[in-house]
Amino acid sequence: MQSALIVGKKICSSLLLRNWVRPLSAASDKLTNVEVNDKTGFAKLTMNRPPVNGLNLDLLRDLHQSIQDIEKNKCRGLILTSASNTIFSAGLDIMEMYKPDQERLKQFWTALQDVWLALYGSAVPTAAAINGHSPAGGCLLAASCEYRVMLPKYTIGLNETQLGIVAPKWFMSTFRNVLPRRIAEQALTQGKMFTSDEALKIGLVDELAATKEEALLKCEKFFASFAKTDPIARYLTKKQLRHNDIKELLDEKVQDVENFVLFVNQPSVQKGLGLYLESLKKKAK
Amino acid sequence: MQSALIVGKKICSSLLLRNWVRPLSAASDKLTNVEVNDKTGFAKLTMNRPPVNGLNLDLLRDLHQSIQDIEKNKCRGLILTSASNTIFSAGLDIMEMYKPDQERLKQFWTALQDVWLALYGSAVPTAAAINGHSPAGGCLLAASCEYRVMLPKYTIGLNETQLGIVAPKWFMSTFRNVLPRRIAEQALTQGKMFTSDEALKIGLVDELAATKEEALLKCEKFFASFAKTDPIARYLTKKQLRHNDIKELLDEKVQDVENFVLFVNQPSVQKGLGLYLESLKKKAK
Amino acid sequence: MQSALIVGKKICSSLLLRNWVRPLSAASDKLTNVEVNDKTGFAKLTMNRPPVNGLNLDLLRDLHQSIQDIEKNKCRGLILTSASNTIFSAGLDIMEMYKPDQERLKQFWTALQDVWLALYGSAVPTAAAINGHSPAGGCLLAASCEYRVMLPKYTIGLNETQLGIVAPKWFMSTFRNVLPRRIAEQALTQGKMFTSDEALKIGLVDELAATKEEALLKCEKFFASFAKTDPIARYLTKKQLRHNDIKELLDEKVQDVENFVLFVNQPSVQKGLGLYLESLKKKAK
Repeated sequence: MQSALIVGKKICSSLLLRNWVRPLSAASDKLTNVEVNDKTGFAKLTMNRPPVNGLNLDLLRDLHQSIQDIEKNKCRGLILTSASNTIFSAGLDIMEMYKPDQERLKQFWTALQDVWLALYGSAVPTAAAINGHSPAGGCLLAASCEYRVMLPKYTIGLNETQLGIVAPKWFMSTFRNVLPRRIAEQALTQGKMFTSDEALKIGLVDELAATKEEALLKCEKFFASFAKTDPIARYLTKKQLRHNDIKELLDEKVQDVENFVLFVNQPSVQKGLGLYLESLKKKAK
Repeated sequence: MQSALIVGKKICSSLLLRNWVRPLSAASDKLTNVEVNDKTGFAKLTMNRPPVNGLNLDLLRDLHQSIQDIEKNKCRGLILTSASNTIFSAGLDIMEMYKPDQERLKQFWTALQDVWLALYGSAVPTAAAINGHSPAGGCLLAASCEYRVMLPKYTIGLNETQLGIVAPKWFMSTFRNVLPRRIAEQALTQGKMFTSDEALKIGLVDELAATKEEALLKCEKFFASFAKTDPIARYLTKKQLRHNDIKELLDEKVQDVENFVLFVNQPSVQKGLGLYLESLKKKAK
Repeated sequence: MQSALIVGKKICSSLLLRNWVRPLSAASDKLTNVEVNDKTGFAKLTMNRPPVNGLNLDLLRDLHQSIQDIEKNKCRGLILTSASNTIFSAGLDIMEMYKPDQERLKQFWTALQDVWLALYGSAVPTAAAINGHSPAGGCLLAASCEYRVMLPKYTIGLNETQLGIVAPKWFMSTFRNVLPRRIAEQALTQGKMFTSDEALKIGLVDELAATKEEALLKCEKFFASFAKTDPIARYLTKKQLRHNDIKELLDEKVQDVENFVLFVNQPSVQKGLGLYLESLKKKAK
């Protein structure tokens, strides 16, 4: 697949003008990387913020922009993956929450909302090639796609309760769109991280793949299942099915930011974050 | 089963007065055919509009009337099936939509709504003996029943996205009442037609049967599972469980007709229908 | 487990003051019995109203009080079980409904609502050790917990339609929180009682256990899955997931009582109850 990923020129030709279609090896100050296969029209959106694709404001804004670009250019599929060999995304960057600038904190959460709205409601078919661990916010991104292929021996889950926090309602809606209610309730209250095999068994991922290359191919095969569908009819069908979940966030978007800001600013939360960061520093030594 | 189907006289005696209980071979200008087994009180409702049970205004009105009659006469079960040996129902009759009379177009969609409301919300236990292919509107009718038995080697599904159209919200609600959300989303966006075996595996049908006779028997066996229940308590339980889906259409019934009329009258849709009809004519030659 | 159940003194020390922590053999005029394991903080709540744990006003009030006490004392798990060796709970006590005092009838239904609200929305992790038959109201209590372990050769289900009644909306919501919609609809309309094996297969219970002791241990093992979670985050997650079901009853609580009172006072219902009680008396002779 790698070799097939060249600079798009036919289907998504306008992308060239924006200068964000490029080979993986290209130097860049952007935290995401989009490549389009001009034979298929499939776009690969790679998160590239070492070491763990921590979702900070900048990565979230890049993600949002990239998803919008892919959609505007009428690509025929979006594969979300990671440049890391071990981490898909470690979730929200804790540094955005510790002793935060209040204005940036709001922007941070708004950016996360916007990424979710764009990805969960994308007109373009979406799939995640999960080539590494995928806790919390990483799992949210993967679960927002329409299909998931995972490499073996990693873990995935919404483990918020283990971190002492509560996943927002729209995280839960996303989970429930993939998993039966019974399984979702147990997983969410336990904050359970599933191994690749377990995730396959309960349906949190659709397929396993031995390599990233194979995972990308399986995502493309999923997109091929839409070959005979009308793209607009397909999109409106998806939109209708996900309508209530999306509407629920749109109706409470500002309140949801305020809830998050209030939560993060609690002294107990700040203290907990501080202790956690201390322990990370010690580990690093 | 055929031999057991005689003119009802005990349980549904008033049916005789209306002259719609008769053996299958009886001549008729009606497009549906109802027979009642007076031992069991089970009614068999057969769609009989050759060659493919295309759902036109007349067939829909006959279906609506038949469902209402079966309900009024307190039959104890309704089996929906087809007089054809290969097609359960091919779905909406495209001729109702091509260069339509505007008033009839509204009546057509309203008739479809009314059939769904009557069947999905029926007080009488319902089952489908799916003895042929069942795409789109055909699948909607089958999925609106409480139980489905299918013959092998046919296909079933809501394949609207493959036809360039969007299944209305209440088609999707009906699908989601049968299938897990995850499976419903994938099937609906792909417009996937499932083989009988696949349909059994995902739960879109409950059983397979080798012959139509066996399918009818299995439907009757399903009805027998209600033998010890109170019919009114059973009905109110079903009504409560399907309440939200039904209310959603009732609240938007007029708007839903207008949406359909607007859609059909689009020049691009008319053009598409015209081309499709041309291709059918060529095939016929 | 039995031997580990001693009078709580560490985790739930205030319980001692209320004098409801005691060994199983203690004499009491209460219809429920709470024991706390002070090593684990897990509480065992035993229904003890011979012969069948019929849910009358007194048992319901005791249950409500016990659930509230366990919650106030921040126990870390609540196991609901029965003192009987053959019946978990036979459901609502029919004597509360036959020729009822009107005021008490209202209190009776309100008490059932309150037990459900307290149990379904409990901050403490909940599990049912189902050591006997569990029809109707008994099944409701079990299904309101977060986990269910059942002994073999018993039956469980919401069999209301077989009793000529309709399960209230919140019974159905509870069932749908555990079972797929398709299975819930069929089970509820049929009023089906599932054997232990069947209940395991469809997911109505999570595990089987050979003995009550083993069932209690498996419930404790389930609670242990929350060891690394923050109790408040865990609770708020559960609360969010069950929010809509709970809100639906809270919004209609008074109306729901009135519906029940109206239903019970129907002459036909009173007549049916009378005949049923007669038949029970004859059996007893």
